[in-house]
Amino acid sequence: MRADFASWSSAHQARFEEVLSGLLPQAGVAPQRLHQAMRYAVLDGGKRVRPLLAFAAGELVGAEESRVNIAAAAVEVIHAYSLVHDDMPCMDNDVLRRGKPTCHVQYDEATALLVGDSLLTLAFQWLGEHRLNDDAAQQLEMVKLLAVAAGSRGMAGGQAIDLASVGRTLSLPELENMHIHKTGALIRAAILLGARCGSDTRRGAVTAAQLDKLDHYGKCVGLAFQVVDDVLDFAADTATLGKTAGKDADNDKPTYVTLLGVEAARDMAQHLHGEAIAALAEFGDAAQRLRELADFIVLRKF
Amino acid sequence: MRADFASWSSAHQARFEEVLSGLLPQAGVAPQRLHQAMRYAVLDGGKRVRPLLAFAAGELVGAEESRVNIAAAAVEVIHAYSLVHDDMPCMDNDVLRRGKPTCHVQYDEATALLVGDSLLTLAFQWLGEHRLNDDAAQQLEMVKLLAVAAGSRGMAGGQAIDLASVGRTLSLPELENMHIHKTGALIRAAILLGARCGSDTRRGAVTAAQLDKLDHYGKCVGLAFQVVDDVLDFAADTATLGKTAGKDADNDKPTYVTLLGVEAARDMAQHLHGEAIAALAEFGDAAQRLRELADFIVLRKF
Repeated sequence: MRADFASWSSAHQARFEEVLSGLLPQAGVAPQRLHQAMRYAVLDGGKRVRPLLAFAAGELVGAEESRVNIAAAAVEVIHAYSLVHDDMPCMDNDVLRRGKPTCHVQYDEATALLVGDSLLTLAFQWLGEHRLNDDAAQQLEMVKLLAVAAGSRGMAGGQAIDLASVGRTLSLPELENMHIHKTGALIRAAILLGARCGSDTRRGAVTAAQLDKLDHYGKCVGLAFQVVDDVLDFAADTATLGKTAGKDADNDKPTYVTLLGVEAARDMAQHLHGEAIAALAEFGDAAQRLRELADFIVLRKF
Repeated sequence: MRADFASWSSAHQARFEEVLSGLLPQAGVAPQRLHQAMRYAVLDGGKRVRPLLAFAAGELVGAEESRVNIAAAAVEVIHAYSLVHDDMPCMDNDVLRRGKPTCHVQYDEATALLVGDSLLTLAFQWLGEHRLNDDAAQQLEMVKLLAVAAGSRGMAGGQAIDLASVGRTLSLPELENMHIHKTGALIRAAILLGARCGSDTRRGAVTAAQLDKLDHYGKCVGLAFQVVDDVLDFAADTATLGKTAGKDADNDKPTYVTLLGVEAARDMAQHLHGEAIAALAEFGDAAQRLRELADFIVLRKF
C-alpha cells in the first residue's frame, strides 16, 4: 500500500537531510570555517521542494534512489548557493532566512561569497564523481542540463533580469520570463535530472516525449510556485514565513500580486496547477507523487 | 621547425581570444547586461598562463587542439570568476585589474556577483556539452577534477585560508598551504586537463605515472608563480603591473617577501623552477613548451 503524501514527503525529507549531511564536507575538515558555513547554509532548512520533485520523478521511472540522491543534492546545493548570494547586501540585503540569520550575517560577507561559490562548484563535483547513469555520455548531458539551468540563461540570468526590473513596470510576459529563469529553470532541472537517473533502468527507458511532458509539468509547477510565493508574501506576516514579509513591495519589485491583484494571482496559480496535472495524464498511477507535489506547492496556505 | 616560444605563445594567445569570444554568450543575447559584463571580465585581459599550460600539456600528449580549447576555456573562466569575486568590496576591494576598472566598478556589485556565478557555471556547461575525450567516463573524471580544484578544498578553500590569515603571522608551511590551494590547484588542473584531453589518442595514452610527473611540474610552477608574484608586487610600481602595487603589504597580508625577504624569495622561485624542469625529464623534447613556460613564469621581470 502506498504511503500517504505527508508520510512520503517527511520520510524523504528526513532521509535526504542525512544524505546531504554525509555528502557535504564535514565541519572538522579544513578550511573549517568555510565548511561550517556551507553546512549552515544547506542543512536544517527549507521544504526541500526540488529534491522531492527529483525523488517523485525518479520513482516514476524506477530510478535507483542512491542515484537520485546525488541529483537531488546537486540541485539543492545550487538552490542553497543562490539563496546565500541573493541575501547578500549587494543583492536583496536580507538578514533572515528560514527563521535563521542569513549566512553573511551569521559569518561574514566574504565567507558568504565563498560559501556560494563552493556550493555551486560542489554540485558539479558530485555529478562528476558519482555514477548517476549507466551511460556516462548521458551523465555528461545531465551535467550540461544542470549548468544551463543554473547559469546566465537560467537561474543566474533570471536574477539579472530581476535586478534590471526593480522600479520598472513589467508586463505579465516580462514577469513570467523573469520567473521562468529565476526559479523555474532549477525546478525543471530537478525533475528532469530525477527522471534521467532512471533512463537506463530495466524498467524501461524514459522517452524524449515523456521528458517533454515532465518538463511541461515542471514549467507549470515552477511558475505556480512563484505565483503562490507572491500571494503568500503579500498576505503573510514575518512570523509565519520566517522571512521579512512584504519586502518585495517595499523594494518596488514587480510581483504577480502587484500586477494582477491577489484574486487573479490565485486564479492563475489554480490554472497552472490544472495544466501541470494534465501534463501527467499518460503516466497514470506512477505519477501520483508528482500530482501530490503539485497540490502541495499550489495549495499551501492560500 | 619548431616556432620560438614568443611566437608560439602569442599565436596561441591570439587564437584563444577568438575561442573564448566564440564560446562566451554573445553580448546581444539576453540578459544582455550580464552577458556584456561576463565578456568584459574574461576577454582582452591577462597572460592566459593557464590556457598556455593546457595547450603545452595537450601538445605533449598529442591531444586534439579543439578539445584542449574547451578545457583551457573552462579553466580560464573559472580563473576569471575568481578574480571578479576576489576584487569585490567584501573581499580585496580592488578597483583596478589588468589596467581596467574591476567588474563591480565598471558595472555594479550585484552584477559582478552574478558574473562570477555565471562564469563558474559556464565552465561546467562546456565540460558537459563538448566532447573532450572519446571515453565519456574519463570526461566525467575531468569534470570532477576541475570541480575539486576550484572548490572548497581547492581554489575557493585557498581564498578562505587567505581570509583567515590576514593580520596573523603565518609560518612558511602555512603560507605554502594557502597558495597550493588558492592559485596552485587551478594551475595544476589546467595542465592535467590538457593532458587528459589526449589520454585516448592514437599517439598513445598518457599513463598515471606520467600524469603524476605533470602534476608535480604543475605544483612547482604554481608555487613559483605565486612567489614571483609576491616579489613583483613588492618591487613593481602600479604603472608596470596594472594593479595597485604594495597592496598585500598594506593589507598586512603575509607574502613570501614579508616572510623570507626578497632575496630568499627569489632563491625559492629558482629552486622551484629547477624542480619543475626535473619533473619533465622523461618526456624529452615533447615537453619543451612546458619547460619554456616554466622559464616564462619564473624569469619574468625579476
